[in-house]
Amino acid sequence: MNITRNGSQASVQGPAEWFTGTVRIDPLFLKANAPSRVTGANVTFEPGARTAWHSHPLGQTLIVTAGCGRVQREGGSIEEIRPGDVVWFPPQEKHWHGASPSTAMTHIAIQEELDGSAANWMEKVSDKQYGA
Amino acid sequence: MNITRNGSQASVQGPAEWFTGTVRIDPLFLKANAPSRVTGANVTFEPGARTAWHSHPLGQTLIVTAGCGRVQREGGSIEEIRPGDVVWFPPQEKHWHGASPSTAMTHIAIQEELDGSAANWMEKVSDKQYGA
Repeated sequence: MNITRNGSQASVQGPAEWFTGTVRIDPLFLKANAPSRVTGANVTFEPGARTAWHSHPLGQTLIVTAGCGRVQREGGSIEEIRPGDVVWFPPQEKHWHGASPSTAMTHIAIQEELDGSAANWMEKVSDKQYGA
Repeated sequence: MNITRNGSQASVQGPAEWFTGTVRIDPLFLKANAPSRVTGANVTFEPGARTAWHSHPLGQTLIVTAGCGRVQREGGSIEEIRPGDVVWFPPQEKHWHGASPSTAMTHIAIQEELDGSAANWMEKVSDKQYGA
């Protein structure tokens, strides 16, 4: 048993190559403990902030915990998400997630690693795509 | 992409064979979407309530979200857990988790299935073990 105490893991800024706008990542369990392959983090998007387009080798689950946000899979419509909503992206599905234009959003992101990688990052979500 | 909306999954009572006291399970993603094998739920323990002793084939992570609780692995001491603490139990480690005697506790429980099972349930945590 290992307890990671609140306050012992520093917040980190979401890297500019993976995000648009101001994004904070608060680690929960960011290193998979093999043979477990699952990792998790709190992610907070300031208004207008979002991920780049990306996919996950074994899928991803989001648990929205605060605010109001947006999600979209490639070829689908933008959907609003709110606290208590749970979003599932299947393996390889290209998608993005973020805040709404006016309201910040926080979710817990849970994904599984395959061959040491939990995400495949692609191009940014343009202002036109985000605002559509 | 699939969105499970807040309010669309009924709360369920924690089964008496797996828990002592009053426990509510609020499903988040309780069915693994293969090849993903991870499942997650909110679990709320009323004061004094706790799981039975149990283990997980691929381990378990708890994210404490409210209240004050207790965890113990077999052979270890009882530890207090509070919101923001993250607990990891390795595969096969016999353990229990629950509320403190006076204060309820809620956590998100995340575990991975192996051969269709995510937990191996054992005997109850006696009042003497819990109060020790």
